[in-house]
Amino acid sequence: MFAGLSAFPLTPLRNDEVDEVAYAGLIERLVAAGVDSITALGSTGAYPYLTTDERRRVARVALEHAGSVPVVVGVGALRTSQVIGLARDAADAGASGVLLAPMSYQPLTDDDVFGLYEDVAAAVPLPVIVYDNPGTTHFEFSDALYARIAQLPNIASIKIPGVPAEPDAARARVEQIRSAVSDRVTIGISGDASAARGLNAGCDTWYSVIGGTLPEAALAICRAARSGDAAAAMAESDRLQPLWDLFAEHGGSFRVIAAIAELGGLVTPNSLPLPVRGLDRTARDRVARVVRELGLIPPA
Amino acid sequence: MFAGLSAFPLTPLRNDEVDEVAYAGLIERLVAAGVDSITALGSTGAYPYLTTDERRRVARVALEHAGSVPVVVGVGALRTSQVIGLARDAADAGASGVLLAPMSYQPLTDDDVFGLYEDVAAAVPLPVIVYDNPGTTHFEFSDALYARIAQLPNIASIKIPGVPAEPDAARARVEQIRSAVSDRVTIGISGDASAARGLNAGCDTWYSVIGGTLPEAALAICRAARSGDAAAAMAESDRLQPLWDLFAEHGGSFRVIAAIAELGGLVTPNSLPLPVRGLDRTARDRVARVVRELGLIPPA
Repeated sequence: MFAGLSAFPLTPLRNDEVDEVAYAGLIERLVAAGVDSITALGSTGAYPYLTTDERRRVARVALEHAGSVPVVVGVGALRTSQVIGLARDAADAGASGVLLAPMSYQPLTDDDVFGLYEDVAAAVPLPVIVYDNPGTTHFEFSDALYARIAQLPNIASIKIPGVPAEPDAARARVEQIRSAVSDRVTIGISGDASAARGLNAGCDTWYSVIGGTLPEAALAICRAARSGDAAAAMAESDRLQPLWDLFAEHGGSFRVIAAIAELGGLVTPNSLPLPVRGLDRTARDRVARVVRELGLIPPA
Repeated sequence: MFAGLSAFPLTPLRNDEVDEVAYAGLIERLVAAGVDSITALGSTGAYPYLTTDERRRVARVALEHAGSVPVVVGVGALRTSQVIGLARDAADAGASGVLLAPMSYQPLTDDDVFGLYEDVAAAVPLPVIVYDNPGTTHFEFSDALYARIAQLPNIASIKIPGVPAEPDAARARVEQIRSAVSDRVTIGISGDASAARGLNAGCDTWYSVIGGTLPEAALAICRAARSGDAAAAMAESDRLQPLWDLFAEHGGSFRVIAAIAELGGLVTPNSLPLPVRGLDRTARDRVARVVRELGLIPPA
C-alpha cells in the first residue's frame, strides 16, 4: 500500500467550516485518476488547523468515498495523548495507516520524538508513516533516529523531505537511509520538486502535494520513474519547473495548490484556514497563467 | 495592569490531566508573593498542548484564585476562529487581557499575522498583548509590523524576546520600539536572562517564567530595576546566572522550571505534556544543586 503515488488532497474550508461536499469530490477525482493511495489530513490537508471533531469527520468522508483505494490519515498533534486519540479514530474509520509528524511548540529532543512514536505504535495497531517535514515541524531527524524509530513495531514508511539534486548523490542518500532502517520500512519522497529525482534514486513512494489536486501530472512522473524510465520522469518534472518555482516563491506549496484548486473550481475561494491567507490577486493571476501554459488547469 | 512583574505559572499535568488543585496552589502562591499580574496559559503554562475545554477550566481556576491580582490569559492557537473562541472564553471568565502569539505550522506572512491581530482585536473587547516568541512560533516580527499592529484598537502591550546585552544598546533598542508604536502600548521583556537589562533599559513589564514559580527572586530584580537601582537589578540577575545557564542548556526554560516546581513539591513529577519529557535524572540533579546553592528551592 505504501508504494507508488500517495495523493495528498486539500481539506477545503467554506466560511471556516470544512466543505465536506467539495472534499468528497476531491477524493472521488483521485480514485478516478488511479492514484495508489490517498493521504487525508496531511500538511496539504491542513490537519493541524482542524479540531478533533473536524478531523474525525474528514477521515470518515475520505474513507466513504475512496472505494478500494487505501487511505492513510494524518494524526499529528502537539500532545501524545491527542495523537493516540486521533489514531484510534482513524483506525475506527477504517484507515490503512496513519501519518505522524512530530509537531512542536517547545523544541523536541530525539528522546521526545522516539517516545512519541513508541507510544503511538504501541497504542494503535496500524502502519505508521514517519513524517519528516522540518519546514513545518522545526524538528530535524538524524539517520540514527530514523533507525531507532524504524525498529518499533508498526513503523511502515518514512516520508523524507528531499534528496540531493545530483542523481548519484540522490541514490547514495536513499541507500544510506535504506541501510539504516529495517527492510520492511519503505522510503517515500516528498517535496514535489525533488520527487522525480527521489523516485529515480529508488524511493518506493511519492507523498505528493500535486497528486492531491493534479493527479494526472503526478502519475505521469511517478509511473515513468517506477517503470525505469528515469529520463521521462525527469523531463516531465522539468516541464513543471514553473510550478516548482511558484512553490518556492510562496514559502511552500500550500497556498499555491489551494489557489490552483480554487481557480479550477474544485473548491470555493478562501478555502484556507485563517490566519493563512490565500494568494493575493497578482500572485493568483501568475498561478493561473502558469497552470494554463502547462495545461494543468483541473477540470471543474 | 501591564506594568511590573507578570508571573507565568506552569499548568501542571498529572496522568495527562490538568492538576487543578496544584494549579490553584501555584496561583495562590503568586498572589501571596505580591506579583503585579498573572499570565495564565503562557508558553510556560503549556497553552498549545491543552484542549479548548482544558484551557477554559484553567482560566477559570486562575481567575477564582487570583483575588484582586489581574489575570491575563494566553489564547494562541493555529486557527483564527479558535483564537477568537478562546479569547471570548477568557473574557467570560473575567480575564483582564489576552496574550496572543502567532503560532504557526505553515509559515506565516506579515499580512497573515496582522490579519490575525486585527480579527481578534475586533472580536473581543479585551486588551491584547502581542507575544513575540520566535523560538516557539518561528515567526519574526519586524518593527514595521509592531507599528502596524499597535495601531489596532485594544493592543495594550508587546512582549519582546530580548534586548542587546550592552546597556546603551539595550536602551536604544527599547526607544526604537517605543518610537515605532503608540504611547498607550507598553513594552515587556521576556527571556528571563535578559530581564534585568530590559527593565533597566526602560521596559514597563517583565513577562516572567521564574516569576511563576520563584516569584520572590523575580520580584527582587523587578523592584530594584523599577525603583531605578539598575546596579542592584543586574547584581541579582548576575547571581542567578547558573539558572540562566541551565535554561540555555536545555533549549529554554520550560523543562528546567518544571523540574524546579517538581523538586519543590509544588507539582507532582512528570508534570509536562508528553511528548515533552522532563529532564533526566542527571540533569535534574544538577538543577537541584543549582537551586539549592542559590537558595531558590521553593517551599513546598
